Amino acid sequence: MFPCPEFPWQLYVGKETNYPANIQQELQKAVNESFDFLRVPLSHPRYSQHPDIKRNNAFTRSDFCLPSDQWNNCIQGKCNPNINPDSSCPKLREKWEKEMGRQIDWAVHLGVNAIVLPTPQLHCTNFARILNQYLEKGFYYQKVHVEIPADKWEIWNALRCMVGPSTALGVSLVITKELPEEKILDRWFGEPIMNVHIPRHIFLKNKQGFPVLPKEHQVFIQKLFKLKASVLIGSARDAEQIRGYICYLFKNQPRLNKIQSFSIDYWDNLQIPLQPLMHNLESMTYDIFEKDTVKYLLYENAIYSALKDNENYRIIMVVGAGRGPIASAALRAGRKAQRNIKVYALDKNPNAIVTLYNLLSTDWAGENIEVIESDMREWKPEEKADILVSELLGSFGDNELEPECLECAKHLVKEGGISIPCESISYLSPVSSQKNWTNAITVEKVPETPYVSMLHNFYSPWTTQKCFQFNYPSPSSNYSRFSSFKFPVATPLTIHGFGGYFESKLYKDITLSTVPETHSKDMCSWFPMYFPIKEPIFCPGGSEIEISVWRCCGSGKVWYEWVINMWKDGMLYKSSGLHNPNGKTYWIGVR
Amino acid sequence: MFPCPEFPWQLYVGKETNYPANIQQELQKAVNESFDFLRVPLSHPRYSQHPDIKRNNAFTRSDFCLPSDQWNNCIQGKCNPNINPDSSCPKLREKWEKEMGRQIDWAVHLGVNAIVLPTPQLHCTNFARILNQYLEKGFYYQKVHVEIPADKWEIWNALRCMVGPSTALGVSLVITKELPEEKILDRWFGEPIMNVHIPRHIFLKNKQGFPVLPKEHQVFIQKLFKLKASVLIGSARDAEQIRGYICYLFKNQPRLNKIQSFSIDYWDNLQIPLQPLMHNLESMTYDIFEKDTVKYLLYENAIYSALKDNENYRIIMVVGAGRGPIASAALRAGRKAQRNIKVYALDKNPNAIVTLYNLLSTDWAGENIEVIESDMREWKPEEKADILVSELLGSFGDNELEPECLECAKHLVKEGGISIPCESISYLSPVSSQKNWTNAITVEKVPETPYVSMLHNFYSPWTTQKCFQFNYPSPSSNYSRFSSFKFPVATPLTIHGFGGYFESKLYKDITLSTVPETHSKDMCSWFPMYFPIKEPIFCPGGSEIEISVWRCCGSGKVWYEWVINMWKDGMLYKSSGLHNPNGKTYWIGVR
Repeated sequence: MFPCPEFPWQLYVGKETNYPANIQQELQKAVNESFDFLRVPLSHPRYSQHPDIKRNNAFTRSDFCLPSDQWNNCIQGKCNPNINPDSSCPKLREKWEKEMGRQIDWAVHLGVNAIVLPTPQLHCTNFARILNQYLEKGFYYQKVHVEIPADKWEIWNALRCMVGPSTALGVSLVITKELPEEKILDRWFGEPIMNVHIPRHIFLKNKQGFPVLPKEHQVFIQKLFKLKASVLIGSARDAEQIRGYICYLFKNQPRLNKIQSFSIDYWDNLQIPLQPLMHNLESMTYDIFEKDTVKYLLYENAIYSALKDNENYRIIMVVGAGRGPIASAALRAGRKAQRNIKVYALDKNPNAIVTLYNLLSTDWAGENIEVIESDMREWKPEEKADILVSELLGSFGDNELEPECLECAKHLVKEGGISIPCESISYLSPVSSQKNWTNAITVEKVPETPYVSMLHNFYSPWTTQKCFQFNYPSPSSNYSRFSSFKFPVATPLTIHGFGGYFESKLYKDITLSTVPETHSKDMCSWFPMYFPIKEPIFCPGGSEIEISVWRCCGSGKVWYEWVINMWKDGMLYKSSGLHNPNGKTYWIGVR
Repeated sequence: MFPCPEFPWQLYVGKETNYPANIQQELQKAVNESFDFLRVPLSHPRYSQHPDIKRNNAFTRSDFCLPSDQWNNCIQGKCNPNINPDSSCPKLREKWEKEMGRQIDWAVHLGVNAIVLPTPQLHCTNFARILNQYLEKGFYYQKVHVEIPADKWEIWNALRCMVGPSTALGVSLVITKELPEEKILDRWFGEPIMNVHIPRHIFLKNKQGFPVLPKEHQVFIQKLFKLKASVLIGSARDAEQIRGYICYLFKNQPRLNKIQSFSIDYWDNLQIPLQPLMHNLESMTYDIFEKDTVKYLLYENAIYSALKDNENYRIIMVVGAGRGPIASAALRAGRKAQRNIKVYALDKNPNAIVTLYNLLSTDWAGENIEVIESDMREWKPEEKADILVSELLGSFGDNELEPECLECAKHLVKEGGISIPCESISYLSPVSSQKNWTNAITVEKVPETPYVSMLHNFYSPWTTQKCFQFNYPSPSSNYSRFSSFKFPVATPLTIHGFGGYFESKLYKDITLSTVPETHSKDMCSWFPMYFPIKEPIFCPGGSEIEISVWRCCGSGKVWYEWVINMWKDGMLYKSSGLHNPNGKTYWIGVR
């Protein structure tokens, strides 16, 4: 592997070889050349055209050739590239069907790290059926890589739509001499690419005679590095030089931004959204939140600006103060504005209150601040607030019930007082992400609930759209909402749900945003929300994706319902069906 | 209701009225006119445009107006026809959303027989969402009828694709003055039509001045009678005459054929396929089978013809003799051919053997027949058969393991002997049937298994295609099979799986068939097989339905896997996904 201090993950580069006379020696040679793995044929080439040939010899080498851990870690087993169980000739179909099964069985027996299948034809029902049988039985740790040329997305799409979802299945993307145009190519960023196969003939020679890639290829491959895919190159004489060049590309890929670095362990990991109203947060959760200095600086600036604009403002209430970071920001803002302010830090979590009381005799010693243990909805203070400060935002803006909480905290605010934030708006856009969807279906097993996920291995060519808006103090106490959107589809693709984001105006032009187009720089407190659908929807060119979302309120709970429809030629081609009716799977408790 | 001795179900005819001043009187009047039910508005017309009007009066009549059982049996409650929760104006949308909920709540409270909803617009996500919430909670016994004009199938299709499957939901089909062409109209036969609404203006006057329908309408409505739908007419002055005319049409609809009459209680009822190899059949099952005289006559004729063609044939073995009907047919054939035959009647079911032994001293007294209690696969007789007769056919031909059983009975047949049947072929065609699919999903809750179902409320405009073929004695012992088919789609429709049938050649041109195109006259031993898919697939015009089916054999079991793909413009628009991998849900035990 290639450790690179600039990037917190390693690049694995492997080499493809012909059937080696001595695999142990071949592997040693590759390791000496700094390769991490070998991709070798599973069976002897003698059998590749005629697997049913009768001989005394076995069809391949013995498993004694390598110790188990080397099969496990260093070998990808490549299936016979001729297999075509979808042949129109019944005899050939049967022959290749048996051979595909035999090769996969053998690869499972050896325990190779990855089983590499050749590209099926577009009409690949039998290939899909055989693969699906293995996926249904499940693999212990092995992965299945299907080789797909970069310009053959339709084949991958057909295959994955037919087989059941499996985290073991991924693409070994074969880079082609001519890359298709960007909007065609970029769909791959929503697919589970486990390996990038760069054949020797793609390389050019530079002036010094060294192998290099065309600029366009460099850019695409550097983007693929971000999916943590391994790289495979052919066994050319200049393989070591090529490996060096790949490592050079890796080292010189665009740096991660602060948010990417912070979140790397969470990429495409699904988390159940927090419900701070129903459950008290834990110390570790507070710890993570408090690392985000950007957010607190924005709050400080917002409070400062509000104090400057309103010289009578003096009473600041922080509702949901947690372990105090926003109250501290308020104190700093007061000092900066040279205003003699009074801060109330309120929380309902008795564990957070312990920390707040401690702060009174440490960081906050001598400050004009009072700690209140209460639910903001029940607290009856002696004086009212000029500025009510809260941070009840979830990844989709209102999903931690900011509207309902602030409704019940209206009584805390003076006439002419303000709320920080004064406005929150959720946003969404369709998402193509086989990986997040597969996780929702196979790991979490629940498609009718939204997840918090640092969407990374995903593709969405659309501008995010405004979904639900709330203003504070609210002019009405109806917090049910409905929004519907249409997203035109230019290039055929498959979508797996939608991503949710939010933008919250703290004060005037001081805004928190997780919306891709306007994301607050370096702010990492919130990951996006992912709303899955039960089945992916293929959207042909010229179709229109219609997303409808409801925020429903009733019987002490709040929940979302959603549906994604795909329209074409004025007809409903496909509906995801309505998700989460009556909040049956996911709801947020108001109490 | 209108009882008609020619038809084993009753016609219910109802009348639509305006909001009646006195519903009790109105209902009495209708009953006096021989109507079975009334369809009345759920709320007073005063509120139909402005449901949010503030008044002292309640929005509708009290539930005291009728006793519960009359609400339950005789009243359909019609929702405000103006409701449009999909209005583009947010205020109107909210108003109608509330109103739709209030009306349904009220209808549920009253316990009316059916809740009638007006036709939504084509883009009906919010209408669908509200309805879906109620369907998800479930109704105790009430039905929901959505009024859909006969030429607006696309609206119904959009609605049902968005809401979850529910046996409570059906169509009140509104007959239009102009009927669309047949291929457009006939799609309705795959939809759950609960009511046929024939407005007054559709009727013409005949020479005598009586209301009649155009011929085309008569034919369509008579076909709808077969779905056991009720009929609704407007409250015209000549309502009684119109009712009389509807009854006349009912009485003069085409008669049921013998198979339809026999199977009426099984229409669209899903049954788990029998597994006679693993489970011994019960007396009642034999009873039903033995009623089918047609089948036994075909067997008799086949044996007779074989005897006539081969003058040396003498030994006839009936394997799987059950309670003896085929052995009796063999004896009759022998008599008719004036051949001195010997019959062996073999069965493995000890309960059937009791009956067979009894027959030896009654019906078969003096005949040259021997009863053998054995599994045909294990029996070692002293002499071999000239004719091996079996009837191991399931609804899909080979699904009771005829091929595997006859393989193991090969040793019973002489060189030059024959098998009756000598060939079996399964057939299939795509099926549009919301009702059968809904039953599979909601009642049986298992979509990955085939069912035996007397497909009735279904639509399939395609010729059935040959699927798997088996010949006996079999030239090979490989009984795995694969078939793939393409069905072009001219008119947009939604499919829910495929129907399975079979044709079995007993001897030369004597054939048993359940294939729609060649069904053996009056033979009612087998109902079709229904292979569902997890989700319906909408197929636009110009698309192609690809059905692939595998018969898989291994580890002591046989199972089917299947997938339905919809292709258009060279792309896979939608795949059902592979069903039943490794026989995980449905398999047939070989032992």
